Amino acid sequence: MQKNLEDQIVKLAKQARAAGRAMALVSTAEKNQALKKMAAALKSRAGYLIAENQKDIRVGQARGLSSAMLDRLLLNEKRIEGMACSLREAAGLPDPVGEIMRQWKRPNGIEIKKVRVPIGVIGIIYEARPNVTSDCAALCLKSGNAVILKGGKEAFNSNRAIDAVLRQALKGTKIPANAIQLVQSTDREAVKILLQQNASIDLIVPRGGEGLIRFVAENSLIPVVKHYKGVCHTFVSATADLKMAEEICYNAKVQRPGVCNAMETLLVQEKIAARFLPVMAQRYWAAGVELRGCAKTRAILGKQVKSAAEDDWYAEYLDLILAVRVVKDVGVAIEHINKYGSNHSDAIVTRDKKEADRFLREVDSATVYINASTRFTDGYEFGFGAEIGISTDKIHARGPMALEELTTYKYQIYGKGQIRS
Amino acid sequence: MQKNLEDQIVKLAKQARAAGRAMALVSTAEKNQALKKMAAALKSRAGYLIAENQKDIRVGQARGLSSAMLDRLLLNEKRIEGMACSLREAAGLPDPVGEIMRQWKRPNGIEIKKVRVPIGVIGIIYEARPNVTSDCAALCLKSGNAVILKGGKEAFNSNRAIDAVLRQALKGTKIPANAIQLVQSTDREAVKILLQQNASIDLIVPRGGEGLIRFVAENSLIPVVKHYKGVCHTFVSATADLKMAEEICYNAKVQRPGVCNAMETLLVQEKIAARFLPVMAQRYWAAGVELRGCAKTRAILGKQVKSAAEDDWYAEYLDLILAVRVVKDVGVAIEHINKYGSNHSDAIVTRDKKEADRFLREVDSATVYINASTRFTDGYEFGFGAEIGISTDKIHARGPMALEELTTYKYQIYGKGQIRS
Repeated sequence: MQKNLEDQIVKLAKQARAAGRAMALVSTAEKNQALKKMAAALKSRAGYLIAENQKDIRVGQARGLSSAMLDRLLLNEKRIEGMACSLREAAGLPDPVGEIMRQWKRPNGIEIKKVRVPIGVIGIIYEARPNVTSDCAALCLKSGNAVILKGGKEAFNSNRAIDAVLRQALKGTKIPANAIQLVQSTDREAVKILLQQNASIDLIVPRGGEGLIRFVAENSLIPVVKHYKGVCHTFVSATADLKMAEEICYNAKVQRPGVCNAMETLLVQEKIAARFLPVMAQRYWAAGVELRGCAKTRAILGKQVKSAAEDDWYAEYLDLILAVRVVKDVGVAIEHINKYGSNHSDAIVTRDKKEADRFLREVDSATVYINASTRFTDGYEFGFGAEIGISTDKIHARGPMALEELTTYKYQIYGKGQIRS
Repeated sequence: MQKNLEDQIVKLAKQARAAGRAMALVSTAEKNQALKKMAAALKSRAGYLIAENQKDIRVGQARGLSSAMLDRLLLNEKRIEGMACSLREAAGLPDPVGEIMRQWKRPNGIEIKKVRVPIGVIGIIYEARPNVTSDCAALCLKSGNAVILKGGKEAFNSNRAIDAVLRQALKGTKIPANAIQLVQSTDREAVKILLQQNASIDLIVPRGGEGLIRFVAENSLIPVVKHYKGVCHTFVSATADLKMAEEICYNAKVQRPGVCNAMETLLVQEKIAARFLPVMAQRYWAAGVELRGCAKTRAILGKQVKSAAEDDWYAEYLDLILAVRVVKDVGVAIEHINKYGSNHSDAIVTRDKKEADRFLREVDSATVYINASTRFTDGYEFGFGAEIGISTDKIHARGPMALEELTTYKYQIYGKGQIRS
């Protein structure tokens, strides 16, 4: 069984490598045509997809999945239209492949071009939402890569159906069917084996909870670009426009608390804490936000605010809970963020340009903001037209990742017989 | 002992993280001043360095190191001047940190800047040459990073002396001494422990033989950018200027056979093989090059050419040995290179533009050449002014790596109170 599984995954990976080589040579028009065919196929096979999805839903109900989980798992006409829409959008995005990133000539006459090319084979390891299957396939294909998808067991039947429909749609296009492959196993061992295929897979992008991502990072021989969590901060400086601060802090926490770019800790400069916190707390309480504060916060807001423990400063609540700390100045705020944060997205609200510049420079995070909500850390909000993930790593890609981040480059050198002396 | 070693390395890594944070804020002028002080210190402490190096030489002699190895290990006035020169050169190079790589405005008015920043902490794991210690320290510091160095046991005393002199030179500069740290252990276990410090080290660059690099890649939780070996090819097309081909093929093999960008396999198109190979072979034989050929090569050159085995196509000889294969056309040449090559540097000699373009596009290597010697794959030859390594990976950096490749970026976002709706 284990041996069979290994054979199966090694075969998959080798097929992906071959498909990736072919993919790199497919023209933009051919890729776009294939993406549109894939979109049409999802829509025309909606009945089949929904029937397969219902199998997962029934298993999920029997297993006692929460209603939130079941909702994430569900496919219906509207969601299938959403998936098709993502495929058509990918077709409409500019193709990053072939861009000449830089070009120069050396004194000996050789010309060097740094040209953007696909990475090759991308592995996506993800959890319940079945739309990830088609969304990720779309972006990998558009950027000229082959993709290996490994979804969660909850969506097993749904993912298998989506994969089958997409592969079927590739027939008659210039894209080999093996450019999209799904690992047809619910065994976690399959993930481990996949992560050893560094000869055939170039990059792993895990998407899901911190547990899954740590498992992937710790077991991979293949480079992984990832974020574990988003412990995002907003620091309200004494010089801030407090009305602006209020709107930003409210939005960053409340607008969609379950996502990685939502604020988890509010830092307030001591000088204005007694003025700002009571107003802010009223708005949070009205929205049902639980506050967990440092001693100074509690001195201002009262004992109904729970005392924040050390763990709260590290916490990604993904919920209507907020840690609040009163800090002396921007220096302490930066220290706090670099110590407890997750290098994801952090904001300062200030009217002091020098203070703002210091914050931007010294906070060691992928995305740093002056006077805006951290909720903008997102491929679409950045104008990339897509998002395959967000990286808090520093190697290869940082921040929101889209098509460009699924490419690498090669140097093409044009000589006239030059040799080295 | 093991526990002590672990404590020591964890401490080193944490100190490096703190030093890296400080390094990122040091100005270009301050970095350059420190680099010049380091250069001067090496020269003024040359006697001490040579005395410490002699300890290594004596141990090496007693251990029976080859004379080539002992030569690589040796420090003398001239080589110390070379190290000092590299430090001064690093001071003279443009600082990549702070470059605005891209800048744009979104419809909602937020401005996004993609700004080049240091990576943080770089680990360099390398073998015998002690000059690597100062060369790598120079490039890491210039690019705003802290560095942890782990050299080979053969150069233990030399590396310790260089490290001490460089750290001493940092006193009175804006660079914290812990921006340069050497792992003071000859235990391979130390490397393993170092490779687990992913909380404090951001990137590992291994330099040395394939064995060391595989050990690093297989044991690292930290991203590694590397090349295992350089199995470089030159394909001589039937349309080539054969005189040009001869010079390029001679240079790529003979000029310096012991380096990763030297040619290891010559591919010749069948149509001109009987014309080209005898001339080429004469030149190779005159230079003492051993040829190992396919059946067709031997049919042309005679049985004095050894028969190439399957292993020869994968071999990085690093010596005056060359595998030779006659191939039908550019398609077979590309297939051969993508199958047996190491994705390092591969060249075509041709006068056919279409064939050249196909080769550049389809050969999946970091650096691909038309009508030039593969020996140009090098940070200095590319005009980067330095080289910290060469990558055949596709993640983060590909090809010659210098200062830019030791940086990442962050997104700095300028708002006026924008919130997400």
